[in-house]
Amino acid sequence: MTFDAAKEQFLTTIRRLTHLVSATSLLYWDMQTIMPPKGAPARAQVAGAMQAEYFRLATDDGLGAIMDVLAENGDKLTGREARILTLMRREYDRNKKIPADEFEAFSVLTAQASHFWMGAKQNDDYASFAPYLQQIIDYSRRFTGYWGYEDKPYDAMLYAFDPALLTKQLDPILAELLTGTRALLKRVGKNTELSTVTVPPERQHLVADYLLRTIGFDMDAGNLYTTEHPFCSSIHSGDTRATTKFHPAMPLSSIFSVLHEGGHGVYDQNVSEDLDGTNLRDGASMGIHESQSRFWENIVGRSRAFWQTHLGKVNELSGVSLCDDPEIFFRAINAIEPSFIRIEADELTYNLHIIIRYEVEKAIFNEGIDSDQLPELWASKYQEYLGIRPRTYAEGVLQDSHWSGGMFGYFPSYTIGNLCAAQFADAFVKQHGPLEGHIRTPEGLALILDWQKQNIHRFGAEQTPRQIMERICGEDVNPAFFLRYMEKKMAAVYKA
Amino acid sequence: MTFDAAKEQFLTTIRRLTHLVSATSLLYWDMQTIMPPKGAPARAQVAGAMQAEYFRLATDDGLGAIMDVLAENGDKLTGREARILTLMRREYDRNKKIPADEFEAFSVLTAQASHFWMGAKQNDDYASFAPYLQQIIDYSRRFTGYWGYEDKPYDAMLYAFDPALLTKQLDPILAELLTGTRALLKRVGKNTELSTVTVPPERQHLVADYLLRTIGFDMDAGNLYTTEHPFCSSIHSGDTRATTKFHPAMPLSSIFSVLHEGGHGVYDQNVSEDLDGTNLRDGASMGIHESQSRFWENIVGRSRAFWQTHLGKVNELSGVSLCDDPEIFFRAINAIEPSFIRIEADELTYNLHIIIRYEVEKAIFNEGIDSDQLPELWASKYQEYLGIRPRTYAEGVLQDSHWSGGMFGYFPSYTIGNLCAAQFADAFVKQHGPLEGHIRTPEGLALILDWQKQNIHRFGAEQTPRQIMERICGEDVNPAFFLRYMEKKMAAVYKA
Repeated sequence: MTFDAAKEQFLTTIRRLTHLVSATSLLYWDMQTIMPPKGAPARAQVAGAMQAEYFRLATDDGLGAIMDVLAENGDKLTGREARILTLMRREYDRNKKIPADEFEAFSVLTAQASHFWMGAKQNDDYASFAPYLQQIIDYSRRFTGYWGYEDKPYDAMLYAFDPALLTKQLDPILAELLTGTRALLKRVGKNTELSTVTVPPERQHLVADYLLRTIGFDMDAGNLYTTEHPFCSSIHSGDTRATTKFHPAMPLSSIFSVLHEGGHGVYDQNVSEDLDGTNLRDGASMGIHESQSRFWENIVGRSRAFWQTHLGKVNELSGVSLCDDPEIFFRAINAIEPSFIRIEADELTYNLHIIIRYEVEKAIFNEGIDSDQLPELWASKYQEYLGIRPRTYAEGVLQDSHWSGGMFGYFPSYTIGNLCAAQFADAFVKQHGPLEGHIRTPEGLALILDWQKQNIHRFGAEQTPRQIMERICGEDVNPAFFLRYMEKKMAAVYKA
Repeated sequence: MTFDAAKEQFLTTIRRLTHLVSATSLLYWDMQTIMPPKGAPARAQVAGAMQAEYFRLATDDGLGAIMDVLAENGDKLTGREARILTLMRREYDRNKKIPADEFEAFSVLTAQASHFWMGAKQNDDYASFAPYLQQIIDYSRRFTGYWGYEDKPYDAMLYAFDPALLTKQLDPILAELLTGTRALLKRVGKNTELSTVTVPPERQHLVADYLLRTIGFDMDAGNLYTTEHPFCSSIHSGDTRATTKFHPAMPLSSIFSVLHEGGHGVYDQNVSEDLDGTNLRDGASMGIHESQSRFWENIVGRSRAFWQTHLGKVNELSGVSLCDDPEIFFRAINAIEPSFIRIEADELTYNLHIIIRYEVEKAIFNEGIDSDQLPELWASKYQEYLGIRPRTYAEGVLQDSHWSGGMFGYFPSYTIGNLCAAQFADAFVKQHGPLEGHIRTPEGLALILDWQKQNIHRFGAEQTPRQIMERICGEDVNPAFFLRYMEKKMAAVYKA
């Protein structure tokens, strides 16, 4: 096969794969938002089958041969083509190790399990979910055996999210973060509390739309629907979907989940259109993606300046005052206090939730801990790190959707995201001066978004997380920036 | 290859194909209901690509070889398996004649055109749509050449919807219907009119939900969203989606479109689950499918008994009285009067709209009429058959979505549906007595639905339209029943 023919076939296959991913993303988004309940069993079959179609094409021997031809002619590839090839080759080699029938069974299983997890969480019934979780664990363990690893089996799971952030790299980062976090926790003062208000879902929806627009999420290229576990899904170019949930008694919950998912959303909306139809349209890594969502949720969304500007409008749209004083609001939404639910946690203890999950997943893969031991292990870790013990499964081991989807190894991305976000904020400030001034005006928020777009978003996965960090920050992930950021914020929140 | 291996591979391929259809259906449903506008260009690519994946698999040489093995062992197949094979073989032979690249280009084109058609209709701008329509016509003509035909090119298009209802069969049926319709039109008396009321969309939505439940549409296995051109889409088992539009000034429009799409919906919801994962899950034909939608829309939905029971509740949900007197309402919704819009037409002139489209499509395929001549041909046919001339493109040649999707040959299905519905009603009455009594009660409506389910719905495409008609009615499509039904209804509507 000539190089030109190989290249054309390769790019055609990449395009076919991205189209299959788009169709599958819509099936999952729909399943978690508006699908009628009786559609669940058939949907699991269809979603699993679509992943199997993807797997079949992504492990085709012909694709392997084509990639060999391209690799032999590496000097003829553009930088972008080489990156597409690198990522596809990595995925190909990894997928090739998994028997196709096991992959399809696993896909159907996780599509089903997501449904059973939701029911189990609603009914606080771990036993009904445990058998599915155990099967997912069993498959995943077998996959780590197929994939292989240098140090520990868990590394084979982490590899999927960032091949350069395995246990070896994560352990010292998280250890430094843990030490710093424990030191800061000692400085927590008296927390400010807000009086409880109830905001009907349709009012919360108005607030959510307003916030999405405020941070620059393009509502003509996306939408917002409700779901049990908020997420953001990019179906394809021009169609990025944020989701949230509206509990009348918890208006702040949707506010921050919308800012979080909106942060993912603006990333996806600003990836260069040149990358359509390639495997570079996703973010650089889940860690970099989370850096953007956590940036908008926390660095912007929990800043004093943001609420000085927007609290009035949010109160108006809510039809009830969440708080009359932006300063009190600012302190209340930054109160630091151990709690059960990761996605509701304050910025400082949030990372302890991640460290717990990281250790629990290590135990599953490296120490053979099974589903029946997880609730207790989970509870004991919460006791150890946060000094509290979940009273229910729903506020404990059942709270996250990730495991039902087989996404072991994802959680560290959130903390990596927190750390990178603080580093990016530091780099931005060096160029443009203090954030607060920018956060206060529409032009300033637009400047922040444009800075992200030019420096991060538009590249998609064309650059590695390392390249992005080095280019913008001059160094890789470093917890010192986040700890300094938290120290400063705590000084503002807890000043007498 | 052994027979057993061939059979297993065959059924696996059929299952893969149905899953691709499900995923593609969702892409289209979503595109026409809730997709953000900027998603349109990429969605067309994705939807086209998914159809190409289907086409690739459905024309695979291996599939042909497998079907040969099965055909040689026809005596070992169950009746159901034989039917699956017949339908797949027919489709395979037809698809094999189309070059894959032309099929994919055509799929992307129609996915795009649907978007441009919507814009053109909204802006009454035929010129902006005409180039797309012309391309669709050109492709379709070329396809008829690939497929071949006995009499005329248009037969190759009709074949897709019912191979036993080509021009040869349709011409005499429609001629008899036209004669009868013209005779009945002479008997139209003074029409009853309702005063205009405005019902806000959210109120119309309540009415729509109520009507769907009333006719037995399972809202846990389906939903209702809004769209520009109402349709019903069965994504897969347990997920059937009706769509409608809510114009505040046209509450009756959504009422009858919902009854129509709900009629399609109950068909899909009642297909036997045994047929999941096969090509028999669709209805027997579009004609039989339309017989069910038109049955619920007209024979039930425009009956006196239905509104004697439900008008009060519909008024209440509307928040305003559409009409205080069921008898006046009954007469008004059955007023016969030439009009421009097919889906708003009365039962009698409706078929004239179909005859016009049938003749226009004949002209496109058999006489080489092109897109630039269509508005004039359309207008002249309306003048000829209905005595009126469209003043805008939107109320003329742009009103239907079908052509933008390449669906030439579909329209006769509506009239076949009307005729079969009347024949089914006749058969039902012979077994269970007059419809009116049944329509009046929930149990009676449930009996009608169950009769349809047992006699029609559950079989899916396992029986041919001919077999269904012969089994239930003792004869094939016959316009006499519909004409008799209309005569009787007109006597009730126009009595002094």
